[in-house]
Formats: sequence, C-alpha cells, structure tokens
Amino acid sequence: MAKKETSKARLRHAAHRLFADQGYRETTVQQIAEAAGLTERTFFRQFKDKSDVLFAAHEEFIAALLKAITECKEEQSLVKVVSGYREIAKQVFDDTHTMTAARHEIIMADENLYERELLKANQVTQQIQAVLEPTYGIDDAAFASKLAGNIYQLAFDTWVKQTEPEKLSSLVWHYYQKYCDFKTRN
Amino acid sequence: MAKKETSKARLRHAAHRLFADQGYRETTVQQIAEAAGLTERTFFRQFKDKSDVLFAAHEEFIAALLKAITECKEEQSLVKVVSGYREIAKQVFDDTHTMTAARHEIIMADENLYERELLKANQVTQQIQAVLEPTYGIDDAAFASKLAGNIYQLAFDTWVKQTEPEKLSSLVWHYYQKYCDFKTRN
Repeated sequence: MAKKETSKARLRHAAHRLFADQGYRETTVQQIAEAAGLTERTFFRQFKDKSDVLFAAHEEFIAALLKAITECKEEQSLVKVVSGYREIAKQVFDDTHTMTAARHEIIMADENLYERELLKANQVTQQIQAVLEPTYGIDDAAFASKLAGNIYQLAFDTWVKQTEPEKLSSLVWHYYQKYCDFKTRN
Repeated sequence: MAKKETSKARLRHAAHRLFADQGYRETTVQQIAEAAGLTERTFFRQFKDKSDVLFAAHEEFIAALLKAITECKEEQSLVKVVSGYREIAKQVFDDTHTMTAARHEIIMADENLYERELLKANQVTQQIQAVLEPTYGIDDAAFASKLAGNIYQLAFDTWVKQTEPEKLSSLVWHYYQKYCDFKTRN
C-alpha cells in the first residue's frame, strides 16, 4: 500500500495534475478538491487560493536550505551557500523535473505569479544573508547570499528548460565554476 | 519663470508631494489631479492607476542606463555595467534623495508594490544581459548583469536610508570595490 499522504499533499498533487492536464487558468478550486477526494472547505484550510498551491513548498524549502548552509563545513561564505543550494537541489529537485518544469511554465506565463516568485527568491536571499552576517560581516553576507542566489537561478533556469534534464545539483556546481571563471576575467 | 512642465511631470510631482504630506494610501487620484490643476481624465491618459505614478520613470531609467553602458569605454563586462549604473546615478539620483527615499518607503510598506519593484529590477538585469550577450557571450553577460545589479542594489539600499546622504554614484563605486575585496576572499 502506498504511504498515506496528508490532505495538503493530496491537494497539491491533484492540483499539479490538473494544471498539467487542462491548464492552470482553467482549473478551479472545486475541481482540485474533487480530484483529491476532499472538500473545498478542506482546501481553504490549507491554502488561501489556487495560486497558493504553487508556493506551498516555499517555507519548507527555506528551512531545509538554511539548515544545509548552517551544517555545511566549508569555511568561505560563497562556497558554503552554493553547497547548501546544491545539497537542497539533491534532496528536493533532482527527481522532480517534470512537475517543477510544469510549475515554472505556469509561473512564467502570469506576471502576478512571477512577481510573487521573485519576492520569494528575494526572501530566501535575505534569510541567508541574516544567517551569514554574524560570522562573515554585513558585506560578505550580502555578496555571498546574492551571488549564490544568482548562481542557483542560472542553474535552475537552465534545468527547467532541458528536455533531457541533468541533475540540478550538478548544474548548481557547474554554474559555480562558471562564476569562478568569470571572476578571473572581471 | 520656471520651465514649463508636461502634464505627466506635473501629475508626478503633485502625487509625490501628496504622498509625502498625507500618505500614499490616503491619497486619491482626484486629489492628485486637483493638486496638479488637471482633470482625472488627464491623469488616466498618462497613468493606469495611482501606483503607476511610482513606476513612471522606469522606461526612461532603462533607456538611459542601456545608453550609458553601451557608450562606456571600459572593456571588461562587469566594470562596464557598473560604470553605466554610476553614470545614471549621477544623472538621475544624486540630487533627488528626498523624493527617492520617500518613494522607496512607500514601496517597502506595500508587498504588491515591492513585488512590482522587484519585477522592474529583474527586467533591467535582463535587458542589460541582452545588450552584453553578443560581445561577451551568454555566461559573462549573465554574471556581469546580475552582479552589477547586486552592487547597485546594495548602494541604493544604503543610500535611501542615509539621513545625510552621500552621492549615490560614489556609493555604487564603493560597493564595486567591496565586491572586488569580496572576490579575493571567495
């Protein structure tokens, strides 16, 4: 028997299946609830609205990322943050290309969703910066968090477009090395 | 006699005065139009809504920035983009601290406005990247545009909080040098 999913996870998976099958705009909360075998009332206990489903994993992602960064043994700030991203890419994304790419396509097609995505990415950077600041000081914390965010973004944007996807974690490292090349020239 | 302002500029200045005096939320389009000695109909010919006033200078800013980058004689991609930002800071922002800081405060207090600000900043980075790509290749264009955006952002965030403001253009250069220090350590 399959492991029992929480109602939140059931709703998320049902929503993503419907988004993929019939489109994000065409999908209603009622359809999501029905497909998950739950009520709309249950849906609204878990999510503010349909778009909220797309960002449901954000808090989890931040928490796991901050943990990975804190536990990373690297001493230099930038490589520490990049290693954290790489670790999370391994844990969360290496096996979820299809769903992540579909989600990304929905977000890129809607300016409001894309704005929200940028806000979330910005929050991630700020939280990493706050974690680094006591050890590395304000400037290094700012540059390491922003730059690692840039590196992750480049890896992610490449990855979601790949039809035969590499591992996101490998791409994170690949773009870190591209940055290392860049800085020898700049 | 003062130089005659366009109706768009009159509306912008009237709006910013009202935002500063009585608050952004409390200000209506009707009040803005009246304060500018114009009609609401004229307002809506220039702006979609009240929030649009806050982003009215964006297209101008991008055009001037791309021009400055293109005209800059520096050869290395990063210093070329940073120099472009510094030039625009000189032209546009060095003498407008009060209004820019007030605008920034309005934007930071409202999540929707802040999301839009992030979207605009992201568009700036993408347009710079597109300008650099033919000369510098895709990777250097990506890193130089993102990194210069980070440097400008750090300078700008520092500047708007200063009560005795330095020149934004000096701060842009200052943060570029901080980045140069950072990369020797990372």
